Amino acid sequence: MIIVMKPNATEESIRIVTSYIESNGLQTHLSKGEETTIIGIVGNKAKLATENLASFKDVEKIVPVTESYKLANRKFHPEPSVIPVGNTQIGPGTLTVMAGPCAVETEEQLLTIARNVKAAGANILRGGAYKPRTSPYSFQGLEEEGLRYMQTAKAETGLATICEVVSLDAINAAVKYVDMIQIGARNMQNFYLLKEAGRSGLPVLLKRGLCATIDEWLNAAEYIIAEGNPNVVLCERGIRTYETSTRNTLDLSAVPVMKERTHLPIIVDPSHSTGAYKYVPSMARAAVAADADGLMIEVHNDPAHALSDGPQSLTFKKFDRLMEEIRPFAALMNRTI
Amino acid sequence: MIIVMKPNATEESIRIVTSYIESNGLQTHLSKGEETTIIGIVGNKAKLATENLASFKDVEKIVPVTESYKLANRKFHPEPSVIPVGNTQIGPGTLTVMAGPCAVETEEQLLTIARNVKAAGANILRGGAYKPRTSPYSFQGLEEEGLRYMQTAKAETGLATICEVVSLDAINAAVKYVDMIQIGARNMQNFYLLKEAGRSGLPVLLKRGLCATIDEWLNAAEYIIAEGNPNVVLCERGIRTYETSTRNTLDLSAVPVMKERTHLPIIVDPSHSTGAYKYVPSMARAAVAADADGLMIEVHNDPAHALSDGPQSLTFKKFDRLMEEIRPFAALMNRTI
Amino acid sequence: MIIVMKPNATEESIRIVTSYIESNGLQTHLSKGEETTIIGIVGNKAKLATENLASFKDVEKIVPVTESYKLANRKFHPEPSVIPVGNTQIGPGTLTVMAGPCAVETEEQLLTIARNVKAAGANILRGGAYKPRTSPYSFQGLEEEGLRYMQTAKAETGLATICEVVSLDAINAAVKYVDMIQIGARNMQNFYLLKEAGRSGLPVLLKRGLCATIDEWLNAAEYIIAEGNPNVVLCERGIRTYETSTRNTLDLSAVPVMKERTHLPIIVDPSHSTGAYKYVPSMARAAVAADADGLMIEVHNDPAHALSDGPQSLTFKKFDRLMEEIRPFAALMNRTI
Amino acid sequence: MIIVMKPNATEESIRIVTSYIESNGLQTHLSKGEETTIIGIVGNKAKLATENLASFKDVEKIVPVTESYKLANRKFHPEPSVIPVGNTQIGPGTLTVMAGPCAVETEEQLLTIARNVKAAGANILRGGAYKPRTSPYSFQGLEEEGLRYMQTAKAETGLATICEVVSLDAINAAVKYVDMIQIGARNMQNFYLLKEAGRSGLPVLLKRGLCATIDEWLNAAEYIIAEGNPNVVLCERGIRTYETSTRNTLDLSAVPVMKERTHLPIIVDPSHSTGAYKYVPSMARAAVAADADGLMIEVHNDPAHALSDGPQSLTFKKFDRLMEEIRPFAALMNRTI
Repeated sequence: MIIVMKPNATEESIRIVTSYIESNGLQTHLSKGEETTIIGIVGNKAKLATENLASFKDVEKIVPVTESYKLANRKFHPEPSVIPVGNTQIGPGTLTVMAGPCAVETEEQLLTIARNVKAAGANILRGGAYKPRTSPYSFQGLEEEGLRYMQTAKAETGLATICEVVSLDAINAAVKYVDMIQIGARNMQNFYLLKEAGRSGLPVLLKRGLCATIDEWLNAAEYIIAEGNPNVVLCERGIRTYETSTRNTLDLSAVPVMKERTHLPIIVDPSHSTGAYKYVPSMARAAVAADADGLMIEVHNDPAHALSDGPQSLTFKKFDRLMEEIRPFAALMNRTI
Repeated sequence: MIIVMKPNATEESIRIVTSYIESNGLQTHLSKGEETTIIGIVGNKAKLATENLASFKDVEKIVPVTESYKLANRKFHPEPSVIPVGNTQIGPGTLTVMAGPCAVETEEQLLTIARNVKAAGANILRGGAYKPRTSPYSFQGLEEEGLRYMQTAKAETGLATICEVVSLDAINAAVKYVDMIQIGARNMQNFYLLKEAGRSGLPVLLKRGLCATIDEWLNAAEYIIAEGNPNVVLCERGIRTYETSTRNTLDLSAVPVMKERTHLPIIVDPSHSTGAYKYVPSMARAAVAADADGLMIEVHNDPAHALSDGPQSLTFKKFDRLMEEIRPFAALMNRTI
Repeated sequence: MIIVMKPNATEESIRIVTSYIESNGLQTHLSKGEETTIIGIVGNKAKLATENLASFKDVEKIVPVTESYKLANRKFHPEPSVIPVGNTQIGPGTLTVMAGPCAVETEEQLLTIARNVKAAGANILRGGAYKPRTSPYSFQGLEEEGLRYMQTAKAETGLATICEVVSLDAINAAVKYVDMIQIGARNMQNFYLLKEAGRSGLPVLLKRGLCATIDEWLNAAEYIIAEGNPNVVLCERGIRTYETSTRNTLDLSAVPVMKERTHLPIIVDPSHSTGAYKYVPSMARAAVAADADGLMIEVHNDPAHALSDGPQSLTFKKFDRLMEEIRPFAALMNRTI
Repeated sequence: MIIVMKPNATEESIRIVTSYIESNGLQTHLSKGEETTIIGIVGNKAKLATENLASFKDVEKIVPVTESYKLANRKFHPEPSVIPVGNTQIGPGTLTVMAGPCAVETEEQLLTIARNVKAAGANILRGGAYKPRTSPYSFQGLEEEGLRYMQTAKAETGLATICEVVSLDAINAAVKYVDMIQIGARNMQNFYLLKEAGRSGLPVLLKRGLCATIDEWLNAAEYIIAEGNPNVVLCERGIRTYETSTRNTLDLSAVPVMKERTHLPIIVDPSHSTGAYKYVPSMARAAVAADADGLMIEVHNDPAHALSDGPQSLTFKKFDRLMEEIRPFAALMNRTI
């Protein structure tokens, strides 16, 4: 933490700031330049609400030096983590492919999709039973009934399973039926839900919020890990920008940035980020080449009649072709599907 | 809802789209141009998941014509709503001023602040007891204890009270102690919480999400109203943009846009949007001049030692001056404080 | 300028950085914390391309402390500037109103508009003769002929005049006919044009770029002033964000931010920022209340038939009403129109 | 072009709109729904400034149906274009690699870099002689002298050459010395410069503006092509978003979007978009996998002492390794380097 004082800061102002810091059990280092005086803070900054120093007289700005997340920070955990999910795992050496419908609609639909994505090479079945929808009049999901179908699909195909949760009730139900829970973009800073996810015992896929910074995203992961659950996987799913040609803007550079800052695996969702099936294959290949640990792809038996997000879903045929396309890219990145 | 077909769309493709729409009990209107054919859909579009039509062959794009929110829509409720909150009300003719600390810290602190903002002319006391914080290691609020202090402050000063809620537990506690609940920016699309807020019976202040569109914001209000609770007030608190000189970018044009689209009142929060006390007075005056129905202002007895958001809090003296400054602007807008 | 070293930075790495800085004639101050070492640079940083220090081993980040603009900086010029424009001036005590059509179309049209905005109280006539248009197939302006009409309108009404320039040819023509030139949003970082505007001798209205930061905007002003032309006025005209309800998002908090950082006046354009005439009055009032030094408003005799930007233009009747509306707000801000 | 009328639009309002359109020689198609009337316009919309229809009474919104760019539009030119540049070409089957320093500093520096990037496999040498810099006090380039060094480097290595231009003078100089000119991000909507680039006869690399939409970018290309110069190559170089972990946000989905909308080739610049050399390799691989037609990479003999953009430049060793890394990815995409 560094305090930059205004050019005309008085000795008195500087003294008040340093006294305040030192009275909180921290040390200060003064650096006086021709124009500006800088005060460095040494020690555990958790001891004071340092942001408030901006309210002191003649303080120009506060510059944080260390990240607020610790457990998710690669500095203190240099080896990349491997996260177990049912009978599979996510991390180095593996390209995880999560595939399935945006929303679970019927048992038959889900089984058909599960069989097909399994045959094509996916290793985790995704399917939404609790759907966060912009309008209260849109289909909101089958809830626990949908989770039971997920369990059936797992029993039949052997695929591990993942489902989004939106409340404590949903987490309590999910624990009974699926292998991994997902916190969606709209709930990335629903801190209450993050804590409950941390207590659930299940591995958690944490999607990036629509306009979350990398730092906020890692702090959200920290909420889960701080509850004793180290099994967090990040998922880049596009951020909101001014560009409307795609539903969101896939921020693929988040992959190398995250590899630098955290030991947690990161997967990429080219379906939600682009919002259009026709852009999914190129962004899936790019994600693999960028060294993502996996992909989350929407697949539907009949996209035109899907109850949610049809336009971005792949048909079985398109998903088969996609899997064929990405295999050599995965091989170049030393990952097995 | 309008379907724009690709320039080279075949008769067959057009026929498949219109048949599909008509088989769902809706009517179509065809408009064939030199380059492009357009299909208008007539009837209640809730009958089909129209967005999926984008998956049909030769469909170029889908253009929605009517808004998905109904109860919040000014088209069906032309008169502006007046929302009762404790012993006061929010709407035309009144400039509501909500003031108080970001976080409730102690009973004495809250009482001191309550007395001072009451004396300066505020009519609603704000104070956070459940704090959504980016880092799990920051102060998270006093929870129910903080709500009890709010009740005491109300009893002593007569001010109506508002507190943010972040979970069903928080709502259940808030109902016992305060007059209005707030859904914060990070929970604006926590649809589970919106429904529970709708069922709480209390008036709800709905803050705009960090990157929510006007349309998403009104759909979030619709979730609350659809549960039978018509008492929703909107709060513009800045959106996330590339500019970092202010904490967020106050989107003041949201005020006239909302006046056009909805009958719900809208207030403005210049404290969170700018993140700096020095910018609060000018943005407060501007909000009043833009015809906002009220202001939400952070006030603290000792900003430098506040446990949360000190840099944007006004001292009592600054708040007094602000209230003096905005009175003549409120008078020009025919609003009494 | 502060260099933050990585937590595990070696003594060798730190020595290489400090040696490099000192070999460029600057001094360093070392501050060693428990986790992190910080190196402060003292002296004139123009002596080295400091950003490159980010390439040195074990450097985590570079934090600039002082702004790169000097002549536009309020730190070195505490009094607000007053900019003379023809027979009027822009700055404290005055609310400048620039009004007129987006594009000059005919002499008669311009004269009609000039007479009407003069009668309503405007003091500068705006009118575009060189139009930057997104498509090459849109109307591009009358060029020098349009400037001559501006001169005629000035002669008849006594209004000062302003016109946008897009090239050196346009500047050379403008110098002959109008009182002030405008650099539009799309050219805000056309540094070649900025330098030529600086050499023109005319006062310059510098519009903010579509996604320019406050810092970039002030550096653009610095380009003009550095050529010996101190007469620069800033114009906030909305920035690009994800929100599409308005054409751009008016960043009104730029007004108090600029009042703090620079001595240059700042005016606000509610027409281009909102893109819709119906939102202009509320944003014009808000701009005045925020302490803007003026307004730029599009007015057209027949908006529906305008060759450019009709939807955001006010009719004469609407402009008359607007001027009546803003007078008492200007009076509260101690400004005369 | 579709006009959507307000729900309560009167017959009179509808008649006035249709009459106006028809009086301009166009036809209308009326579609009356239960709530809303829609008016389709048939014919060449260039005949009227259709956006102004938004000013007519009871008009809710205007929906464009066809793009404003024609010559750049893939609808009218289905085959991808191949653009000749000196002794090489850009387009299908080739992965073009443009490499070199951000700014040309000395003849020796440029020759050293040219030899090294040639040896590693680059086919075009980039080097800036006219540098658009945020601050007027930063190094602005060697201008014509720098161009002469580019000519020398071409003569010695056989590499084709590209240089950014910022004015007509720069274009006139560039024509004498280099094979391709570049319009930088800050000048993407400097329409005067676009027209001059169109008249130059040289192939043009058109970088995307910092916050340009896909549509604005293609319209900028249209300005160049409309002057008779079909040799335009697009370059995605990152857009401005709220995220600051990278200098800009690389919008890689622009690659498949452009492949759909235009026949022009598109290359990707991972250096400027990320702003950090450490993120360049992963984004370069991703760009190739996304089917980009080429890469633009900054390479410098001594990044720490570069006069511009050192932090994002690769050393020779890192560039060699990058070229080795991307070769198998190019092979998978059926492109030769």
